[in-house]
Amino acid sequence: MKNLKLAAKSAKEGKTVVEVGDVRIGDEFVVIAGPCSVESEQQVLESAIAVKEAGAKVLRGGAFKPRTSPYAFQGLGLKGLKFLKKAGNEVGLPIITEVIDPRDVSWVCEYADIVQIGARNMQNFSLLQEVGKAGKPVLLKRGMYSTIAEWLNCAEYILAEGNPNVILCERGIRTFETYTRNTLDLSAIPSVKEVSHLPIVVDPSHATGKLSLVEPMSLAAVAAGADGLIIEVHANPCEALCDGAQSLDGPGIKQLIEKVNKLNAAYKAL
Amino acid sequence: MKNLKLAAKSAKEGKTVVEVGDVRIGDEFVVIAGPCSVESEQQVLESAIAVKEAGAKVLRGGAFKPRTSPYAFQGLGLKGLKFLKKAGNEVGLPIITEVIDPRDVSWVCEYADIVQIGARNMQNFSLLQEVGKAGKPVLLKRGMYSTIAEWLNCAEYILAEGNPNVILCERGIRTFETYTRNTLDLSAIPSVKEVSHLPIVVDPSHATGKLSLVEPMSLAAVAAGADGLIIEVHANPCEALCDGAQSLDGPGIKQLIEKVNKLNAAYKAL
Amino acid sequence: MKNLKLAAKSAKEGKTVVEVGDVRIGDEFVVIAGPCSVESEQQVLESAIAVKEAGAKVLRGGAFKPRTSPYAFQGLGLKGLKFLKKAGNEVGLPIITEVIDPRDVSWVCEYADIVQIGARNMQNFSLLQEVGKAGKPVLLKRGMYSTIAEWLNCAEYILAEGNPNVILCERGIRTFETYTRNTLDLSAIPSVKEVSHLPIVVDPSHATGKLSLVEPMSLAAVAAGADGLIIEVHANPCEALCDGAQSLDGPGIKQLIEKVNKLNAAYKAL
Amino acid sequence: MKNLKLAAKSAKEGKTVVEVGDVRIGDEFVVIAGPCSVESEQQVLESAIAVKEAGAKVLRGGAFKPRTSPYAFQGLGLKGLKFLKKAGNEVGLPIITEVIDPRDVSWVCEYADIVQIGARNMQNFSLLQEVGKAGKPVLLKRGMYSTIAEWLNCAEYILAEGNPNVILCERGIRTFETYTRNTLDLSAIPSVKEVSHLPIVVDPSHATGKLSLVEPMSLAAVAAGADGLIIEVHANPCEALCDGAQSLDGPGIKQLIEKVNKLNAAYKAL
Repeated sequence: MKNLKLAAKSAKEGKTVVEVGDVRIGDEFVVIAGPCSVESEQQVLESAIAVKEAGAKVLRGGAFKPRTSPYAFQGLGLKGLKFLKKAGNEVGLPIITEVIDPRDVSWVCEYADIVQIGARNMQNFSLLQEVGKAGKPVLLKRGMYSTIAEWLNCAEYILAEGNPNVILCERGIRTFETYTRNTLDLSAIPSVKEVSHLPIVVDPSHATGKLSLVEPMSLAAVAAGADGLIIEVHANPCEALCDGAQSLDGPGIKQLIEKVNKLNAAYKAL
Repeated sequence: MKNLKLAAKSAKEGKTVVEVGDVRIGDEFVVIAGPCSVESEQQVLESAIAVKEAGAKVLRGGAFKPRTSPYAFQGLGLKGLKFLKKAGNEVGLPIITEVIDPRDVSWVCEYADIVQIGARNMQNFSLLQEVGKAGKPVLLKRGMYSTIAEWLNCAEYILAEGNPNVILCERGIRTFETYTRNTLDLSAIPSVKEVSHLPIVVDPSHATGKLSLVEPMSLAAVAAGADGLIIEVHANPCEALCDGAQSLDGPGIKQLIEKVNKLNAAYKAL
Repeated sequence: MKNLKLAAKSAKEGKTVVEVGDVRIGDEFVVIAGPCSVESEQQVLESAIAVKEAGAKVLRGGAFKPRTSPYAFQGLGLKGLKFLKKAGNEVGLPIITEVIDPRDVSWVCEYADIVQIGARNMQNFSLLQEVGKAGKPVLLKRGMYSTIAEWLNCAEYILAEGNPNVILCERGIRTFETYTRNTLDLSAIPSVKEVSHLPIVVDPSHATGKLSLVEPMSLAAVAAGADGLIIEVHANPCEALCDGAQSLDGPGIKQLIEKVNKLNAAYKAL
Repeated sequence: MKNLKLAAKSAKEGKTVVEVGDVRIGDEFVVIAGPCSVESEQQVLESAIAVKEAGAKVLRGGAFKPRTSPYAFQGLGLKGLKFLKKAGNEVGLPIITEVIDPRDVSWVCEYADIVQIGARNMQNFSLLQEVGKAGKPVLLKRGMYSTIAEWLNCAEYILAEGNPNVILCERGIRTFETYTRNTLDLSAIPSVKEVSHLPIVVDPSHATGKLSLVEPMSLAAVAAGADGLIIEVHANPCEALCDGAQSLDGPGIKQLIEKVNKLNAAYKAL
């Protein structure tokens, strides 16, 4: 693929494995789960307990929310990040959170175990360079308008700063279809694996925008060869400030992970 | 879904099962396989033997090829259809072939066990009405520009003529991505199942246009809940007049069906 | 452009001019106008009088309507076509109507001065060949999912049957934008003119789906170099059975054509 | 339009006019022109002389280039900005340049008369807030994947910080078409004017990626009601480090502006 150097398959032997504490993304199948946004200390703790019990390996939660409208809830910021960290510590899970401003990278990295670059910021090159310098593992979402080649070049921006710990995340692309929020492009998984050594996870919650489609698309992601999933979970989806309609509750995430693990075992045995 | 009557989930109890000889599409997982186009008696017979041995349940082959350019190979027509029928008889497989002109429907139905409506003709309403009247099972491909709602309304055109035996086929939609030929929309599978009782199969060969992606997308289709696959197979892919680059050979289809069946067993047991 | 022969710019000297009675499409700027569908003898006559008085050169009206749902109004068929012909005769305008079934081409051509291939049938190759053989001028709409290259190859299908009288029509492509019904691609006009000698007109009514956008997009089409426009007009838009919301009334089309002619004069003088 | 407050048409009487020196964007038709990127002191000065003589009102030039690959030329940064400012001063034109990092906004604003937010950064909300606070006029390009509603909400982010001087810029959206680089959506012009008071200009150079399409699309933009154009000009296009293939040279921009002004006079007189 044109211009790719460090992200290209030929750049190293074998797959990249991103280690976060005991978790080895790219080696074992990893479910990242938690609320779209951190709303309160209690809410994130309840979610953390639920996802830990369900078998998730990383706790997610948004402290900075990039929202279409300036008048929508923008997240709790540092306060939210502290709630997330505390919850992660209490249940024993590493945490991932989105960063949207290059000026925030260094201090967000003091709390986060993985930093997330969201779809809208995939080509925010200053931000990419900053997380490249910071050195913490980075989950890089595909822009909803972005080709696989452009996406991998954004990974290259991070790698070129000396940070090898990049996890790609397919989260749906924008098409004309309106039944789902975006169109989850699962063919991106084997495509990425043809040209790169980087691990790739899938976000079926944001891609489909529909709770009912999260399980089938999670299972399909397993069978397409994904290295993991990132799933929205809210202890009380009906009360969520953001994206509640697509969030699983505690029993939901537990059942999902059970099925995912069973299917993954069969898949690995093929 | 707006305007849907006969295709709507509420129109009947349970799923539609389309019976073709012993094959029960919608009940068992069915692999349809064969060459993109019928090129000669020998070629289609060799392919038929290969797909039969691999475990496919229906033999596919194009006699009429809708091609972008009027100067490209347009298929052998009636002669090709006879070769296909003969090959199907010899190996004991029902056959499916595309029909592109309403005037051809009645006589094509004398040979074909299933008639296919291609993506470019999804909204060829005269053709839909004609296959609706003919009564033979119909495989209706999704237009590459078409929403799920429009697609199901095309099924409704067929059902409204009194033909209940419609099989939907997801074959990729057109997006900005260029790594794959089209973008396979696997979320269409659970989406269709939410609103309709019709069975749905997946065509990973045309969707991706890449041999290397056929297996991972086939497995993903299984895990997304598809009722079957339609796969391009050519005994000698390198010599194919059409779409050879994405065709599996005999050993390829055999290995694919083995993996698909194993994964499907695990999926059904979830 | 790959595969193009007869439609290619190099195939002939100068531009193609399609003559319909006194009208010379490709030479003079031509407005085609009339109702989306023929609903009654009186309705189409009223519209015909309005568009004739406004300065339109061809009367349009749909007798066969390709509709998403089988339960939507499908047009009056032959009866509608007779009403349209009669109205055209009465006001002295040639008529254009859509044909959607290859079996209808010969008798529709007994009434129509121009036959239209709609966007959904752009790649209905049997239909293209039939209108190619029939010899009447053909207006070929761009499929809403179709590249310029594919569109010109469809023109090639008609030309290859010996019919040189093809008019292209840009009517909007399908994108993610929802403010307009489709996205009118005016860059298709100079693009087509770079590679082909065929005339090209623009349909701003269907492309935008909004009455308020018809005038600005008509003027923009003039300045992009279009050879004409096709505009929906209904004497009583509020009572229209189909697409009333985007139809101009009598005074509306008159004002539009006045502005279009003034701007076109300035454009030609550049 | 949902959520819009300050950007909504109802928020103020009449249109917004952005004043930059003597230039009144939104009132008079304004051509912004200059090289894609500043390459040297001499190159930008030659371009500045050419565009000034041609009748452009604002000089553009990129000092920070957001590039797909980290290994592509990224611009001269501060040095380039100084060259641009000097060239603008010498010929007597205000300057516009892109800013891509919120940390650069304050010092870039010491040089630039208008700051540009590029398509890839349309939803870089930190950057939007920073240019909102800085108070300098902002040209906000539409994201290549972005709906009109999302775009106007990004303008709202800037307005909400107290900066009323926002100019919108349509630069093409991403579709399946490959003949042009992107698809210029001219219907966005009257659409924006229906719902907002903000001025809107068009960038035909980046939208089409083809020199031959710049003139027809510029004229079409005039007739669609645009408030101006932003055009790539390079004194020696063949030697350009970036986007040379779509750049006009000195005589080219002069001829373009003459035609644009003539057509605009006719348009205003309609």
